[in-house]
Amino acid sequence: MNGKQNAAKRIFTSENNKKGKTMSRFDGKMLDGLVPYVAGERPKDMKYIKLNTNENPYSPSPKVKEAIDNFDYSTLKLYPDPDVSELREAIGEFYDVKTENIFCGNSSDEIIAMAFMAFFTGDKPLVFPDITYSFYPVWCDIFGIKKQIVSLKDDWTIDFENFPKNAGGIVICNPNAPTGIAVKRAQVEEVLQKFPDTLILCDEAYIDFGGESSTELTKKHDNLLVVHTLSKSRSLAGARVGFAIGNAKLISSLNVIKNSFNSYTIDRLALKIAVAAVKDREYFENCCKKVIGTRNWAVVQLKELGFDVLDSSANFVFARPAGISAEELYKKLKANGILVRFWNKPKISDWLRITIGTDGEMKALIDGVKEILTAC
Amino acid sequence: MNGKQNAAKRIFTSENNKKGKTMSRFDGKMLDGLVPYVAGERPKDMKYIKLNTNENPYSPSPKVKEAIDNFDYSTLKLYPDPDVSELREAIGEFYDVKTENIFCGNSSDEIIAMAFMAFFTGDKPLVFPDITYSFYPVWCDIFGIKKQIVSLKDDWTIDFENFPKNAGGIVICNPNAPTGIAVKRAQVEEVLQKFPDTLILCDEAYIDFGGESSTELTKKHDNLLVVHTLSKSRSLAGARVGFAIGNAKLISSLNVIKNSFNSYTIDRLALKIAVAAVKDREYFENCCKKVIGTRNWAVVQLKELGFDVLDSSANFVFARPAGISAEELYKKLKANGILVRFWNKPKISDWLRITIGTDGEMKALIDGVKEILTAC
Repeated sequence: MNGKQNAAKRIFTSENNKKGKTMSRFDGKMLDGLVPYVAGERPKDMKYIKLNTNENPYSPSPKVKEAIDNFDYSTLKLYPDPDVSELREAIGEFYDVKTENIFCGNSSDEIIAMAFMAFFTGDKPLVFPDITYSFYPVWCDIFGIKKQIVSLKDDWTIDFENFPKNAGGIVICNPNAPTGIAVKRAQVEEVLQKFPDTLILCDEAYIDFGGESSTELTKKHDNLLVVHTLSKSRSLAGARVGFAIGNAKLISSLNVIKNSFNSYTIDRLALKIAVAAVKDREYFENCCKKVIGTRNWAVVQLKELGFDVLDSSANFVFARPAGISAEELYKKLKANGILVRFWNKPKISDWLRITIGTDGEMKALIDGVKEILTAC
Repeated sequence: MNGKQNAAKRIFTSENNKKGKTMSRFDGKMLDGLVPYVAGERPKDMKYIKLNTNENPYSPSPKVKEAIDNFDYSTLKLYPDPDVSELREAIGEFYDVKTENIFCGNSSDEIIAMAFMAFFTGDKPLVFPDITYSFYPVWCDIFGIKKQIVSLKDDWTIDFENFPKNAGGIVICNPNAPTGIAVKRAQVEEVLQKFPDTLILCDEAYIDFGGESSTELTKKHDNLLVVHTLSKSRSLAGARVGFAIGNAKLISSLNVIKNSFNSYTIDRLALKIAVAAVKDREYFENCCKKVIGTRNWAVVQLKELGFDVLDSSANFVFARPAGISAEELYKKLKANGILVRFWNKPKISDWLRITIGTDGEMKALIDGVKEILTAC
C-alpha cells in the first residue's frame, strides 16, 4: 500500500471512528490504514426490538442470578485467579476435555485476537472466505498478517477445494456468519487432514444452535483450535467470557500471549457467572431448543412472504426479501421499531441478517414485514 | 537478534510458561523470544498474609455491594454499552474532565498495551527507566517496539536529563514501581515541555497514595496520556477496570485500537461496580488515608530494624534489610506465612517490595521480621 492509499484509508478510518475526530499526531504504524470492526447499531432514540446483534432473547440461567447473589463483594480487592481454574474445570467437565486443553478469555473476540497474534504472524497467508465474520480481516490488518481470501461458492458454502496449499492458517466460522450455514464435522476433519501442518481455527460462536461441534476432534488433531463464546447460547453477551479448546501446546502459546498483554482479563464476578452458566446444562439446552424452534417457524413465515432464506444452524437467518430491496426493508423496519442487520457491501447488499428473538418478537417482525410489503 | 539467541530465549520462554510445556509448532513470529510478564506468586498451599501484589487491604466501597445487589442479571444477555458512557461520565465528574477525554479499559494493563500499540509503534525508541514496572519491556517485545532504557540515578530517582532527544515516546510510572518514589507534577510538566513532539505516558497506578497526579496537565498538553487503575486505591483488583485521560485525539486513536482488537472489554457488572466506586469519593479518600498512615508507621518500624527504606508515595515500600539478605528474609517470611516480593535481578536483589496491608498485617510483618533477625 503506498502513501496515498494510506492517506485515503486514514480518512476513512477517521470517519469510522465513533467520535468523528481526526486522529492523533502521535499515531504509530499499527494505526496506519486501520479500519476498525463495526458492531451492529444501538440507537438510543427509542426502544427497539433488537434483532441485529445476535444476542439471545432469553435471560441467562437462574444459577447466574444465584452466583451474583452469593458473591462476596469484598473479594474484589484481590486479583482474580490467574489460572482461571474453577472455570476451566467446569468447561472441562461439560466438554469432557482436560483443563490443560482449555484457555479462557474476555470473549471469543479477545481469544481469536490472541490466537491471530500467537499463530498467524508467520510468513504465509491466513485463509478465510470472503463472506464471513468481518472482524477477521481487521485482526489481520492490526497485526500485519497477510490474508488470502477465497470466495464462497455460488450456494454460499465454503469453497475448501480452492483453499491454497501454502495457507499459513485457516479460519472457519462454523456456522458461518452472516450466512448461518454450518460445516459438517466430517468436512472439518477432511480439512485438518488435507492441511496437517496448518493451524485451523474453528470459530464456533453459533455452534449450539444446530451445528456439529469439532471440539472432539481436538483430541486427535493438534492443528485444531476450537473457539467458543458464552455470549450467544448461554445468554452472556454482557459478561464477556469465551474459551478455546485445543492441544496443550497451543494453550501454552496462548498463555504466553495473554501474559504478555494483560494477565487477568476475566474479572472475579464474570468468572463466577460463567461457572454457573456452564454448569447449568439443562437450562442451556432448553434455551437453544427454544431458539431453534422459533427459527424454524420464522423461516417458514419468511419463505411464505417470498424471501430467499439460507439454511441456518445459528441464532440468526440470512434472508433476501422479494418485492422490496433489503436496504429499504431494513430502513422501514427500523422506522417501525425493529432493528435487523443490513450491510451495504458487495454480494450481500440484497440480504438481511435477522437475529432470532422470542416468539413474540419474531411475530412482530413478520407482521411488520407483511405491513411494509402490503404498502409497497 | 540471531537465530541462536532466539532459540535460547525460546527455551527460557517455555520455562517461564505456567504449564512448563514446550510451545506449539504453530507459533508465529510474535512469540519469538517473548518472555511474559510474571505477576507476584499466589501459592495455594496455605493461607498467607499477602503483601506481594500491591492489593488494597480494605474492601471496595459499600456502594459497590449495593450496585451488585441492585444489578438485574437478565441484562447480561445484552452486550455492554460500547461507549462506556455511564462510567466515563462518573470519571469525568470526579476528575473534572470531559467524557471525550476519557478512555476506559479492562485494567490499566490493557490500556497501556493498547497505548503502546497506538502510539509507540513508530521508528524511534520508547524510553523508560531500567528499574520500573516490568511489563513495559514485555509490551515493547510483543509489538516489536524499540526501547531505550535509561538507568535510574544513584538516589533511585528518574534521570530525565539523560533521556535521549530522539525519544519516540516516554513512559513514566508515577510513583515508580517498585521504588515507590514519586515525580512532582512540575517535573512532569518540564518533561512535557522538553519533548513537545513526543507522547508521554504517565502510569499513575499508585498516584492516590501520596503522589501529585498529572491529570490536570492533559488540558494544557496534547502530548500527555495519564493512565489510572481502580485496582489499587479503589480496592478493585478483581474487577479489571482502568481509565486513561488525555487529548480527545489520543482517545480517538485508542478507540480505533480497541475496536480493532476487542470491542467490549468491560462487562456490564464491572461497569456498574466501577461507577459505584468512582462516585464514592469519601470512602476512597478514607481508604487512601488509612493506607498512608499505616505506611508511615511501617517505615518507622523498618528503619528501626536497620532497613534502608526509599521514600514511598505508593501503597508499598521498597526496603533493604540489614543483617540478612533480601532473598533469605523473603524465604523465611514466606515459611512463616507472609508473602513479600523479591526479584533476583541486577540492582534490586538486595531489596524487598512490601505491600502496605492493614495495621494488623503490618504488625505481623514487623514481628515476623524481628523474630527472624533475632534468630540470625
